Amino acid sequence: MIDAKEYLKKKSAELDGPIKKFIVDDEPANLIEASRQYPYAGGKRMRPAMVLASCGAVGGNPSDAMPLAVAVEYIHNFTLIHDDLMDGDEVRRGMRTIHVGYGMPTSVLAGDWLFSRACEIISNMDIPPEKVVKVLKYITKAVCDLGRGQQMDVNNEGKIVSEDYYVETIKLKTSVLFAAAAAGGAIIGGADDRTAETIYDYAIDLGLGFQMHDDYLGVAGDPAKTGKSVGNDIRKGKCTCMVTHAMRTIKDPKILEEFKSILGKIDATDAECARAKQILEDAGSIAYAKDLAKKRVESAIERIGFLPESEDKEFMIALARYSIEREV
Amino acid sequence: MIDAKEYLKKKSAELDGPIKKFIVDDEPANLIEASRQYPYAGGKRMRPAMVLASCGAVGGNPSDAMPLAVAVEYIHNFTLIHDDLMDGDEVRRGMRTIHVGYGMPTSVLAGDWLFSRACEIISNMDIPPEKVVKVLKYITKAVCDLGRGQQMDVNNEGKIVSEDYYVETIKLKTSVLFAAAAAGGAIIGGADDRTAETIYDYAIDLGLGFQMHDDYLGVAGDPAKTGKSVGNDIRKGKCTCMVTHAMRTIKDPKILEEFKSILGKIDATDAECARAKQILEDAGSIAYAKDLAKKRVESAIERIGFLPESEDKEFMIALARYSIEREV
Repeated sequence: MIDAKEYLKKKSAELDGPIKKFIVDDEPANLIEASRQYPYAGGKRMRPAMVLASCGAVGGNPSDAMPLAVAVEYIHNFTLIHDDLMDGDEVRRGMRTIHVGYGMPTSVLAGDWLFSRACEIISNMDIPPEKVVKVLKYITKAVCDLGRGQQMDVNNEGKIVSEDYYVETIKLKTSVLFAAAAAGGAIIGGADDRTAETIYDYAIDLGLGFQMHDDYLGVAGDPAKTGKSVGNDIRKGKCTCMVTHAMRTIKDPKILEEFKSILGKIDATDAECARAKQILEDAGSIAYAKDLAKKRVESAIERIGFLPESEDKEFMIALARYSIEREV
Repeated sequence: MIDAKEYLKKKSAELDGPIKKFIVDDEPANLIEASRQYPYAGGKRMRPAMVLASCGAVGGNPSDAMPLAVAVEYIHNFTLIHDDLMDGDEVRRGMRTIHVGYGMPTSVLAGDWLFSRACEIISNMDIPPEKVVKVLKYITKAVCDLGRGQQMDVNNEGKIVSEDYYVETIKLKTSVLFAAAAAGGAIIGGADDRTAETIYDYAIDLGLGFQMHDDYLGVAGDPAKTGKSVGNDIRKGKCTCMVTHAMRTIKDPKILEEFKSILGKIDATDAECARAKQILEDAGSIAYAKDLAKKRVESAIERIGFLPESEDKEFMIALARYSIEREV
């Protein structure tokens, strides 16, 4: 059985060269430097690994898909740069965020540049034009959706939304780029449209499980491992599946009132946050969210059952499991 | 002889429907609404008109190029939204700019969304995939360059740069999208690579002339017509061809000192700005810049001399002339 974490590390090392190669020195130097920060810094690199794996899993040569893998990572980093600016976040991966380090204008431009560079790289891929166009249809649709998801997040900050709305938001914010990456890799690997669509659906499920688990870690994870303060999401009033579950499940009005009084309280004490977590636990909301994520990942794995056995398929399965088992 | 202004108005009216059609209602409504503001508001729409004309001028059917025309206009508007945010501008086309009307996060996202939507529209065009890929190579390269040009502008605000550097900046900021639009239209119309490249070069020259004339209007234009205060560019210390010419031409150190003391003085009086303009006039800098723009436009027109006579070619010539004859 493949260890997804180890495999990701190996793939990330292989991706390092190409990720650096596709950004050459150019004028003005500060724009190029700002654009390089996040892609060079690493991260899990799950999306590009997904591109390569799905290309291989349908019988293609993963190295054919390398430019797409790089492009997808640039797009992910473009959205991180802009999201950090919008959210006012000051630190990522232990570094100053781009708007803090280079100023607002350069952070806007670095994001724009990474996105246009990504589309340029895909347009210049040495594969048949029909494949390029199919890949770009997936990718550009995904980036439209990402923007919609982030806007939904901005609009609903601190509000309680329905579970359906929450799932739609994380689908747009997280799943669609995973899915476009996976489908794109499959197309380059020679998959027919139906196979690409099935792999797309696999990655949608995987992305949902991944994000639900992320939310779980935000409340129930080990801060020493995640590097995130346990109370953060509670203080921000982040409306996750745990919260929507608690809202509809807690029958005792006093406890519900207590929970609501802590959720979104920006200066809540650690003790208050611990109490909110306990309420979620007692209501079964944490277990509920964990189960929801697990079902998504099971669905993801089931969808790609038809693929012939291969190391790449094994990795795609392991990656789905890893999405909801990771501690960080 | 075609009247470029009248023809542009006619084309703009034809473009109105398609420009609206390609943005359908979607969630979240405020993102879609913000994204619509600039494209719906009009403007000269020179870039999409260029797409249609160059498609027709090489013997193609301009309606085949309509989606590209719309996409190019969206890209232009995406850059306007982000530029307005970076520059802190509060009014455009008589409306509040997007970051003022909708807040910073939504202005970032509306720009991102328009750009990704533009690429999605091109990817979905009903033309052979080889053509789509060729068009996208031009367009994505242009957007990378646009970002570089805007960053150069940000970096050099209030600084005196060389004329070469100034020309490189306006080429990236203005010409490359004109040129990608023109080349893209030609490719869709059936042009071979060399013809597309020549039409690209035509539009590079046209864009340079257009921007040099814009700078001219900023100093010597009629404020009642341009809607811009005459002193604006002087107070901002904008380094144009007029300024670089003055810097290297004025021999009297006292006059040079006087000019420098006004240029970039944010609270310069109208009288001071008028004096700076007079110094530019006396040094021959205004005439010099006008002549530079004229030479570019003549070069542009010469480049497309080989095209067979047609109304579209006539418009391309008229548009080049209009670029340096317009009063607004």
